[in-house]
Amino acid sequence: MTGKPEPIAAPPSAEELNRRLEKVRALMLEQNLDYYVSFDPVNVYYLTNFANYIHERPFILVIPKEGTPKMVCPLLETTHVKTRARLPLEYATYYEFPAPKGQNWFDLYRKLIPKDARVGVESAMPFGIAKKTPGKKVLTDIIEEARLIKTDYEIGRTVHACEIINEGHRKLLEITRPGVLVVYIYSEVQRLMMERILADLPDFNVMVTSMSAAVWPPSISHDPHRVPTPFTAMEEGGPHVSGVGGKVDGYGVEIERTFFLGKVPEDAKKPFEVSMAARARAYELAKPGAVLSTIDREVRKVIIKGGYGDNILHRTGHGFGITGHEAPYVALGDNRELVPGMLISIEPGVYVPGKGGFRHSDTILITDTGNIKLTEGPERLEDLTIPI
Amino acid sequence: MTGKPEPIAAPPSAEELNRRLEKVRALMLEQNLDYYVSFDPVNVYYLTNFANYIHERPFILVIPKEGTPKMVCPLLETTHVKTRARLPLEYATYYEFPAPKGQNWFDLYRKLIPKDARVGVESAMPFGIAKKTPGKKVLTDIIEEARLIKTDYEIGRTVHACEIINEGHRKLLEITRPGVLVVYIYSEVQRLMMERILADLPDFNVMVTSMSAAVWPPSISHDPHRVPTPFTAMEEGGPHVSGVGGKVDGYGVEIERTFFLGKVPEDAKKPFEVSMAARARAYELAKPGAVLSTIDREVRKVIIKGGYGDNILHRTGHGFGITGHEAPYVALGDNRELVPGMLISIEPGVYVPGKGGFRHSDTILITDTGNIKLTEGPERLEDLTIPI
Repeated sequence: MTGKPEPIAAPPSAEELNRRLEKVRALMLEQNLDYYVSFDPVNVYYLTNFANYIHERPFILVIPKEGTPKMVCPLLETTHVKTRARLPLEYATYYEFPAPKGQNWFDLYRKLIPKDARVGVESAMPFGIAKKTPGKKVLTDIIEEARLIKTDYEIGRTVHACEIINEGHRKLLEITRPGVLVVYIYSEVQRLMMERILADLPDFNVMVTSMSAAVWPPSISHDPHRVPTPFTAMEEGGPHVSGVGGKVDGYGVEIERTFFLGKVPEDAKKPFEVSMAARARAYELAKPGAVLSTIDREVRKVIIKGGYGDNILHRTGHGFGITGHEAPYVALGDNRELVPGMLISIEPGVYVPGKGGFRHSDTILITDTGNIKLTEGPERLEDLTIPI
Repeated sequence: MTGKPEPIAAPPSAEELNRRLEKVRALMLEQNLDYYVSFDPVNVYYLTNFANYIHERPFILVIPKEGTPKMVCPLLETTHVKTRARLPLEYATYYEFPAPKGQNWFDLYRKLIPKDARVGVESAMPFGIAKKTPGKKVLTDIIEEARLIKTDYEIGRTVHACEIINEGHRKLLEITRPGVLVVYIYSEVQRLMMERILADLPDFNVMVTSMSAAVWPPSISHDPHRVPTPFTAMEEGGPHVSGVGGKVDGYGVEIERTFFLGKVPEDAKKPFEVSMAARARAYELAKPGAVLSTIDREVRKVIIKGGYGDNILHRTGHGFGITGHEAPYVALGDNRELVPGMLISIEPGVYVPGKGGFRHSDTILITDTGNIKLTEGPERLEDLTIPI
């Protein structure tokens, strides 16, 4: 794997999902687990292709070390699960929540696991369900671990999702001018991306499809997680920071750019250069075998040396997959190594109150020899300075 | 409180949020808790007006029995929280996830609660965070309990949200004709509702705003939780089941109708009548002091007597508030009593494979003397038979 893989828009095959289950079972064997139980809709989706919102009627996937996994689910939802799930499942159906004594989900659930079993439980499992789980509970996130290295299918879906956000981001830069409102940018970009999704994925699942498209103008771009309100207006100059991302039928990706409208303020040039140098360092280091915490430490050094050590708000990046934020993390606290097939963002940032934020983000695939950018946007200051 | 309250579109005052906190603290006192910890974004939003998606960097609200609540949150998000939170808070900020040893969120978190404290933990708390919570943990859902009876402010917001979905649902019935696709219905109705939201709530929070608008045509309406795909087409006849709902800047509501295009098939008349009789029975019973399980049992009797006992898939209804699905439940297993200020759906359904589904749903306020429908839509078969 060295070139950019082909996009895939087809739903996953049962074989693909079985391979994922086998990865989970290999980890269960290593950790000597008889059962693994999962409630987190993201983990359930990864293994089954069935997606759900969390509500008061629980869905719990019970994976024995051998044999068909069982889905605990409400009567009302059984055909919904069957319509979407592509992994063979057995069903343990309860009528409603709450139910009269003896007929609740937990009455059913606790019969599925012997009292003396060793049962793996994910961190995200609600405490209320963990308490009703029989057996000796072991807190372990093995589905997250299985998700770390992507299959060829997942990579193909991610390439496809990136094509869609690349198109959305091109449109965003085309329509963003001083005075334009966030609500207009969102609406135009979202419509374009939705048209493409409808064309490519006519059966897409709305539960795992969501899009965001916004720009942080210079007055708020120093504050990257303060969401711009709909009537936030674009300004002359910059730095503006764009963000287009979301989940395309279950695959999370993002692209972000620092750009300027009309002119580049003098005092924006240095922080822009420093953020670009930090980014270049990250790309240089992002290859198989590199330790994630080392990459983040080296990237921070570039920012600190550039004089902006007090203007770091976050790590260098995070993983992608069936979410837009997951392990591995390009962070001081993640001592894992990069492996071919991992998907990460590279997005070191410099945030100067009164001046603004400086950050590009891309969706990156780790290959056998280094990395490939799956998102595409302008990179040089001259291409990021839009005439008005 | 007997008439329909006035709509409110203003953000909550600090006094409103303080009253909510006092409700929670009264329950803490009853249960002899020194602290209560909450992670569920819905519960945190209820108390603070700050909304967040769940991701790997945790936000935890730590409520001591006295003094200012503390918010454990990532550095990157602190100003985001401060921008939205309207309850006075203290902040315990950590840098990143994951962090080097000694600098993680849990290193900070466990210093906030003494080891010998009695600590209330909600059911939805992730097991991984519950495990890091110091003190003697008591599983108790007191914020959900505080949310059961709505304040006048919450009721006003719900009335406002219902006005918006009423408008959306009128539009839906206006444009739905044989051959029309779900994607068109969604897009037209969503646009109309979004225009109204932008006009009424220019600073609305996208994190707690979402809309759904769809119709289940007769070939799938017997299966109410199987989400129609975008290219699902409307048919002649019926029963079609519409659904318009969502969260309008944090307040969840819904309206659903069974309707027909052009003609009412002969064999749809009886199940329609039975579902309407069940619904009428629910309205008759929904008043202060009524036990929820009794209402559901009585409503089921009407359906069973009508000959459709095998065609019940779900309870009579559920609560609304800052979500579209919450306690109390009009269900066999909920033995609480209705109290003025509760918001519930009334939506008994009859589902006949091969014929379709029969269900109206409305958002209902329990008043001092009975109930008021906050949603509005046609109710009689002749008004629900749309000429084509």
